[in-house]
Amino acid sequence: MRIVVLAGGIGGARFLRGLKSAVPDADITVIGNTGDDIHLFGLKVCPDLDTVMYTLGGGIHEEQGWGRADESFAVKEELAAYGVGPEWFGLGDRDFATHIVRTQMIAAGYPLSAVTEALCRRWEPGVRLLPMSDDRVETHVLIDAPDGTRKAVHFQEYWVRLRASVPARAIVPVGAEQAKPAPGVLEAIAAADVILFPPSNPVVSVGTILGVPGIREAVADAAAPVVGLSPIVGDAPVRGMADKVLAAVGVESTAAAVARHYGPDLLDGWLVDTVDAGAVAEVAAAGIRCRAVPLMMTDTEATAAMAAEALTLAEEVRA
Amino acid sequence: MRIVVLAGGIGGARFLRGLKSAVPDADITVIGNTGDDIHLFGLKVCPDLDTVMYTLGGGIHEEQGWGRADESFAVKEELAAYGVGPEWFGLGDRDFATHIVRTQMIAAGYPLSAVTEALCRRWEPGVRLLPMSDDRVETHVLIDAPDGTRKAVHFQEYWVRLRASVPARAIVPVGAEQAKPAPGVLEAIAAADVILFPPSNPVVSVGTILGVPGIREAVADAAAPVVGLSPIVGDAPVRGMADKVLAAVGVESTAAAVARHYGPDLLDGWLVDTVDAGAVAEVAAAGIRCRAVPLMMTDTEATAAMAAEALTLAEEVRA
Repeated sequence: MRIVVLAGGIGGARFLRGLKSAVPDADITVIGNTGDDIHLFGLKVCPDLDTVMYTLGGGIHEEQGWGRADESFAVKEELAAYGVGPEWFGLGDRDFATHIVRTQMIAAGYPLSAVTEALCRRWEPGVRLLPMSDDRVETHVLIDAPDGTRKAVHFQEYWVRLRASVPARAIVPVGAEQAKPAPGVLEAIAAADVILFPPSNPVVSVGTILGVPGIREAVADAAAPVVGLSPIVGDAPVRGMADKVLAAVGVESTAAAVARHYGPDLLDGWLVDTVDAGAVAEVAAAGIRCRAVPLMMTDTEATAAMAAEALTLAEEVRA
Repeated sequence: MRIVVLAGGIGGARFLRGLKSAVPDADITVIGNTGDDIHLFGLKVCPDLDTVMYTLGGGIHEEQGWGRADESFAVKEELAAYGVGPEWFGLGDRDFATHIVRTQMIAAGYPLSAVTEALCRRWEPGVRLLPMSDDRVETHVLIDAPDGTRKAVHFQEYWVRLRASVPARAIVPVGAEQAKPAPGVLEAIAAADVILFPPSNPVVSVGTILGVPGIREAVADAAAPVVGLSPIVGDAPVRGMADKVLAAVGVESTAAAVARHYGPDLLDGWLVDTVDAGAVAEVAAAGIRCRAVPLMMTDTEATAAMAAEALTLAEEVRA
């Protein structure tokens, strides 16, 4: 079974671990969000790709959900001693090595997809991990400036430094219009037996991937059923601050509203949590097959059960 | 008193610590060798500049003579786990931060002299540290290839990886002919009251600095007396493997031969160790004022005494 998953960071990575556990023999291609990539200290950092790679490769800091286990921070301490920031982005020593290798390969002329493949040779994540694009796409967030105008900040600055504490007025994927899907992305979507949207952020993770010209169309046109899992449970994000960026695109923070945001052109099936069972009829009325099942990724077993439910729903759609 | 010192790495740095102790109020400009700079992991590493900066700034690993105190090696371990080398060059985590800052500044368009000044704002070495040139000069060593031809290796590969275990057939300062002295170098030499050659390597440290077009001439033409301290004691290098590279330029490993190699056009005075007192007459016969004094830099006090002897000899030359 060929499964394609459009994944953001922590939520996508944890879902993938459950999916691998549910169907260990599946051929899984992950299309990773690179809109939150950032250059820090002259190094190219790809938070979402690395979170997937470290999580599936056994190197993740489990409690934190991002970054490396057994991490130290000597480099960061020294950079601060030099007065070189930003200090709000926590890069550990082990993590730095990944960014050093990536930056060196990119400077040598390798596209991000080839670099990601090379890094994965060490981590053996058990999936094929593709960046959504080899081109630079950078998610910016428009916020209110003190003088009443608006200003754009990098998504990481909004998310990590500001902790989404101010309203996001708009989400701007800079460079998206010129971006092309990375090699293999459209082919994987076309050849998929199932396409899954994990409970990742629908705007700045899955939405950014779908915003690369050609990817939304390929998903909509794919022969495979497309099934998503709601990242909103009981009208609040399971983790993160998805409600902040949903507001920016005029979407309510409810499981049903996110399904309608993706829409029936894209989604064939949608899983909501059992606490949102009341939304099933509303989603179904929008033309999307829907079911309420437990959606809390408390451990790999619970997550594997969610993945199995998504695959079951996909089978029903196909039949 | 304005003192200019042409310095390599460990020997130069330790001498400078003694000099600062001997004349704490002196205005010291250090012209540092950059011929052994190397790009590693996409980062620009300046071993000699950093050794001077860390030594005078209190951050050096004392026993080792290079690198940082209290160092850890998480980044290097991770790079090795990615299969990315070279593994023979020991960069620690704290040291990595210096190279990351330097590389980021150079990529932003700052010349090495401005970068070095910025790094020194943290370390406050108590001297003005100038790279010999903002242009890239890279010392290569010609060695015998297995097929009977010669091949060039970077100086660091010869020195650190091969540990100078094969004969050096020639020393090639790639790029030297096109290099210009860094801003301030010629001005400092012209304005100096004393110019000192510390017991650094006469070929690949002081020699490389003198090889930047304009610097040798400026030193030779300077009004100030030029006094050197022999890095060879009892026919062997005090530390390092200077004999290997002296052989490549046809110079014997003796205190007198090194003085004659610099020559009376450049040198006004030369200090040899007391064990080489027999060389004093030979050096004097070559037209260079010479004296035998203890030249082992066993601690800062002994090194300060050496520096004081050099300044005394300079005074005699002047008078």
